[in-house]
Amino acid sequence: MTTSVISPLGVDSPARGLECRGCGARFPLAAQHACYECFGPLEVWYDAEALARVTRAQIQAGPQNIWRYAGLLPVGQHEADRVTLDPGLTPLVRADALAAEIGLRAPLWVKDDSANPTHSFKDRVVSVALTAAKALGFTRYACASTGNLANSVAAHAARAGVPSIVFIPHDLEQGKIITTAVYGGDLVAIEGSYDDVNRLCSELVETDDFEDTAFVNVNVRPFYAEGSKTLGYEVAEQLGWRIPAQVVIPMASGELLTKVDKAFQELVEAGLAVAPELPDGRRGWKVFGAQSAGCNPIATALHADTDVITPVKPTGIAKSLNIGDPAAGLYALEAVRRTGGWMDYASDDEIRDAIRLLARTTGVFAETAGGVTTAVTAKLIASGKLDPTLETVVYNTGEGLKTLDAVSALVGPTYRVKPSLKAAREAGLLS
Amino acid sequence: MTTSVISPLGVDSPARGLECRGCGARFPLAAQHACYECFGPLEVWYDAEALARVTRAQIQAGPQNIWRYAGLLPVGQHEADRVTLDPGLTPLVRADALAAEIGLRAPLWVKDDSANPTHSFKDRVVSVALTAAKALGFTRYACASTGNLANSVAAHAARAGVPSIVFIPHDLEQGKIITTAVYGGDLVAIEGSYDDVNRLCSELVETDDFEDTAFVNVNVRPFYAEGSKTLGYEVAEQLGWRIPAQVVIPMASGELLTKVDKAFQELVEAGLAVAPELPDGRRGWKVFGAQSAGCNPIATALHADTDVITPVKPTGIAKSLNIGDPAAGLYALEAVRRTGGWMDYASDDEIRDAIRLLARTTGVFAETAGGVTTAVTAKLIASGKLDPTLETVVYNTGEGLKTLDAVSALVGPTYRVKPSLKAAREAGLLS
Repeated sequence: MTTSVISPLGVDSPARGLECRGCGARFPLAAQHACYECFGPLEVWYDAEALARVTRAQIQAGPQNIWRYAGLLPVGQHEADRVTLDPGLTPLVRADALAAEIGLRAPLWVKDDSANPTHSFKDRVVSVALTAAKALGFTRYACASTGNLANSVAAHAARAGVPSIVFIPHDLEQGKIITTAVYGGDLVAIEGSYDDVNRLCSELVETDDFEDTAFVNVNVRPFYAEGSKTLGYEVAEQLGWRIPAQVVIPMASGELLTKVDKAFQELVEAGLAVAPELPDGRRGWKVFGAQSAGCNPIATALHADTDVITPVKPTGIAKSLNIGDPAAGLYALEAVRRTGGWMDYASDDEIRDAIRLLARTTGVFAETAGGVTTAVTAKLIASGKLDPTLETVVYNTGEGLKTLDAVSALVGPTYRVKPSLKAAREAGLLS
Repeated sequence: MTTSVISPLGVDSPARGLECRGCGARFPLAAQHACYECFGPLEVWYDAEALARVTRAQIQAGPQNIWRYAGLLPVGQHEADRVTLDPGLTPLVRADALAAEIGLRAPLWVKDDSANPTHSFKDRVVSVALTAAKALGFTRYACASTGNLANSVAAHAARAGVPSIVFIPHDLEQGKIITTAVYGGDLVAIEGSYDDVNRLCSELVETDDFEDTAFVNVNVRPFYAEGSKTLGYEVAEQLGWRIPAQVVIPMASGELLTKVDKAFQELVEAGLAVAPELPDGRRGWKVFGAQSAGCNPIATALHADTDVITPVKPTGIAKSLNIGDPAAGLYALEAVRRTGGWMDYASDDEIRDAIRLLARTTGVFAETAGGVTTAVTAKLIASGKLDPTLETVVYNTGEGLKTLDAVSALVGPTYRVKPSLKAAREAGLLS
């Protein structure tokens, strides 16, 4: 017998509170993102029995978006309560030609999250964060963003008819600026790095003027982060409730990587999916992290075999991953070490080449972050860290149209001719 | 009892031949696009009994993409035969805030086809055309394109591992050029208009060098055009197998409009969907066409009450609609007149404003073609041509990220500040 719980997130929410990832202290469900005891980051904790009651049949009977997993999320159990563009169930693309080119001899898949409504995985976390924000009574939506999050928050707010105020570094790609501003909310360009933007938002959220404002990745961050779990659930469901042996995930804060790993754990614990048998005999999966050479503090710590993540000043073209002081870096290190994975990073030229390689072999045009994961996957195979005989999923989290500058100097028309057969023949199009 | 038919498109294809839209002459299923008798355009004709056997249950048990309607399409009945990015089942977005702003007092929906894999409705027609091309033995894929089609053909070819050669006007938006070239096929920039490009392709297709080449919108055009029907099927299914009373559709060649109308007719004939009762007592729907002021030959003919469509030299920002000599213009006129609809056109400034209006009220960021339909919908309500009391669907066929230049001068950051509370206060963000 279960007792009903009065939750600020709705009576059917399986979430029961927030728990410190550092000291384990527990707090009520509220807009709180750091532990009052040790200042550690908070994570949603759930009623394990409630999660265990979720069935494959329930999920499969749900909508064709992230909300089919509402039984495993803190919010969104009822359609009318959602603030959402209904993201998710993005394609899992079989990538045999790419596998052949990078030397993988097992099934390779690209999870293509550019197919989300604003064309990045951020729609997942924003839908969960803003649905929580609405339940908690906030009346203005905000974020600190490297671009994709800005697009998503502004679009969600427009759909919901709620005011928004979005903070970005002033030097973002033009595509990400226009694609935020067009939705009509406030857009604040900060003369500094993403880490500067994030720090300012952490200060603003404490002011009276912003007490009505949910910053999706600041004061409602614990709920926001849970949205990333859906990138784990979906891959497993799309593989027929099988967890892939290896996943390669881009890292900015490092949070996405930890949440995909968490999602796989939850699926196994709830009996919803099975982990593959690895060559060493254990059942499990290996998690790999990808950064750019211009912003590689987590991978550098792993390579140095330390838990000390030294913040960097990000450079390079993979701007959506340019978080120099990664909030979840420690937990990403933990997940990679525990599962037997690894991390690596790619240079700007490697990223540009990998964007083209991915496009040419799969028809998926990724933003720079997708170039990072593709390039790093190839490096991990070359270095022997990634087992070329195991099924692998590579995550593409964003859309090439948003970072055209990355490849604009490298690709273009292969012929330019006048509109006549004679001109076509002279150009070599006809024999 | 049905007899099995040997079809070049596969034994389970319901298609039986090609039929001239002009004189009604019939031809076998093959790569033929004009009538040998009268040079009229050809259309696929089906075994009516086969179409009538398709059930809602079959469709609903199908995949979450256009292939759920394979029983109503000429090709693609078997997954292994498809050349596809699996487009379709794009969102039908309820647009109450937009309805309020433009004076519609009935349900308004935006069918958002920017959610397709290469972010335009062209993925639908390309998937059907190239699946037919494969069945017919072609080994290279091509098109004449205003941009979106180029993106789609190049991406489909990359996914399939088949060479491609794409022809575009040299002055296309940079976003559409890069997003074609990145897939690695040949890309030919023609120093002329789309109509020049189209004419050249019609000549090339007759040469020996191109006899292995399927131009999706030239020699396999009858199959290509059928893909647009899915934009009608989906809207009806998403409305609970109800056809909307009014649809507003952008017109380039005019073909999309005629195929959505055809899809509604097929659904009614097959007993799959019901047409609404209109105020005049008949059961049916009204089809409205939208063009830009820079390329309005079909709307101009309607306004002049003539069947003579005078080709124009297109101008203006709605480049994806810039077909000055529209191949299906006559049939679009016929459909609009028969159903009691109308056509209108929008200026570049009206298009820009409508892109922002749509984004602000729905969270959908459309390319210029979506601005055209939104602007024209507002005009049609203002002029009394569109009934503000009837359920209406507006089609957005493309993605704002591909035409950023249309709005880049109009939107941007609303604040620019240094990363400090002091600077935020001076800028007016804090009291």
